[in-house]
Amino acid sequence: MDHIKIFSPATVANVSCGFDVLGFCLDTIGDEMIIKKTVQKGIIISKIEGYNLPFEVKKNVAGVSALAIYNDAKPDFGFDIEIYKNIKPGSGVGSSSASAAGSVFAINELLGRPYNKTQLTKFAMKGEALASNCEHADNLAPALFGGFTLVKNLSPLQIVQLPTPNELFAVVIHPQIEIKTSESRAILPKEVSLNNAITQWANVGSLVHALHTEDYKLISESLNDVIVEPHRSKLIPYFSDVKQTAINSGALGTGISGSGPSIFSLCKGIDSANKVMDAIKNLYSKTEIAFEMYVSKINTEGIKIL
Amino acid sequence: MDHIKIFSPATVANVSCGFDVLGFCLDTIGDEMIIKKTVQKGIIISKIEGYNLPFEVKKNVAGVSALAIYNDAKPDFGFDIEIYKNIKPGSGVGSSSASAAGSVFAINELLGRPYNKTQLTKFAMKGEALASNCEHADNLAPALFGGFTLVKNLSPLQIVQLPTPNELFAVVIHPQIEIKTSESRAILPKEVSLNNAITQWANVGSLVHALHTEDYKLISESLNDVIVEPHRSKLIPYFSDVKQTAINSGALGTGISGSGPSIFSLCKGIDSANKVMDAIKNLYSKTEIAFEMYVSKINTEGIKIL
Repeated sequence: MDHIKIFSPATVANVSCGFDVLGFCLDTIGDEMIIKKTVQKGIIISKIEGYNLPFEVKKNVAGVSALAIYNDAKPDFGFDIEIYKNIKPGSGVGSSSASAAGSVFAINELLGRPYNKTQLTKFAMKGEALASNCEHADNLAPALFGGFTLVKNLSPLQIVQLPTPNELFAVVIHPQIEIKTSESRAILPKEVSLNNAITQWANVGSLVHALHTEDYKLISESLNDVIVEPHRSKLIPYFSDVKQTAINSGALGTGISGSGPSIFSLCKGIDSANKVMDAIKNLYSKTEIAFEMYVSKINTEGIKIL
Repeated sequence: MDHIKIFSPATVANVSCGFDVLGFCLDTIGDEMIIKKTVQKGIIISKIEGYNLPFEVKKNVAGVSALAIYNDAKPDFGFDIEIYKNIKPGSGVGSSSASAAGSVFAINELLGRPYNKTQLTKFAMKGEALASNCEHADNLAPALFGGFTLVKNLSPLQIVQLPTPNELFAVVIHPQIEIKTSESRAILPKEVSLNNAITQWANVGSLVHALHTEDYKLISESLNDVIVEPHRSKLIPYFSDVKQTAINSGALGTGISGSGPSIFSLCKGIDSANKVMDAIKNLYSKTEIAFEMYVSKINTEGIKIL
């Protein structure tokens, strides 16, 4: 195999109660990438379509993560990366993670899979760090592992793959506004009340249990964020209206996707998801803000070879 | 049925990472209670053995919880409670919970089981509140449900019954010192760092996952408390020595049982549990403090009819 074409999916991090640790993988939106072996050693980025991103390898998320795996594997050849970007940077659904995870996944395939998924995540974190100034894995893990994931530890990196109930669908609305990750980090308090923290870890525990038991009612009751959402939702216009509309239309839960501005809802079944999408679309169409929406089954596979 | 004899077990609350929400049920230590129907309406406590506790119903934990279920059910007869107390009050293994849960469990049986376990927990919380000045359920839930439990919400009360891996055993040491619940509450900070809270809920999530998947290694890695133990362990002499000894002897994890002073360890298999018990016993025998120890399989049944 001397080249590979992949689909690298968008992902939803945090999942309401699981700030910085939980995430799940989407199916209908993602980047495409083509990676080719080259005789010349090193990494080059030869093509970027969709969004205006740097070609310079060390300044490109996919490039930096590619360098990380390349420098570790030390093959006697190189790689050429083409990026067909569909996920808008800054949308809150793991745009940089899709790039960072995509290049390391593809290179690992072309190398004959010497690395496991946790190792790939670790390489990809180097690229992710370029985008967000800190190494995190809550979008990378679902992109690479698929389904729901829990980042138990960053150092040493430890990822737990959670089960994904079969009827779970996500609805995502991406209001076309810009929120800087730095801004959405800065708005968070450094300290939280012990009482709120207890509520949050009770919800994380019950959400993990509910995923195992396919208890949709308990999933719904666990999708509750008393720590981050009260702060970050202020940065997202009409967040509470979207949330109320989604819940009224039958969504199991609604929250901020990653650091926003995208808002996700989880629904039981495609019919419910479509109903929730229609209701949110109807609401947001009346605002002054442009938006994109999509419905997706939870992608239990993660990155796919095309 | 006009009378019933029950075993009401000791329980371990918090379970390291799950402060205020997680708990599990022990098997080898607990109170016995005999409850009889009486022609006379109302609740009386006719016998208390083991420890010096008030006979006045409204001042006795078992009496208060019995009154709660009695006043709700309004039967045209009454109940006589005998308490054979084996769990020392203030030991940190749910002594008051065993009393509170025992009387409501027994009365529910004598009434023909009109209430479910969550309702019984709610009644028992009234008795528990007498002991600790606040309504909580992290010891009551494992006593009434058995196995591992997660108190998702206090209001409305919502208890999640978690699975219990078959080879899990607990070792408990009870140093014979007194720690007031009020003191061990007061030592806790009202605010915690967001970073520590994240670590804690990652551990709660991975512990719940590990219980479902019977992943003993992950159970071990999840039994980590960065919020409460650093404070409360100061109140327990030789805590860190006990912990280190237990871990060195093969315990999956060691932490403070409830608000202490008891210290629990979880172990895989009875042989490992016995080895850990011997090592802790050897260590603590060299201190100036008297202690009691026991090994117990996790009790998946909860309160038992004898």
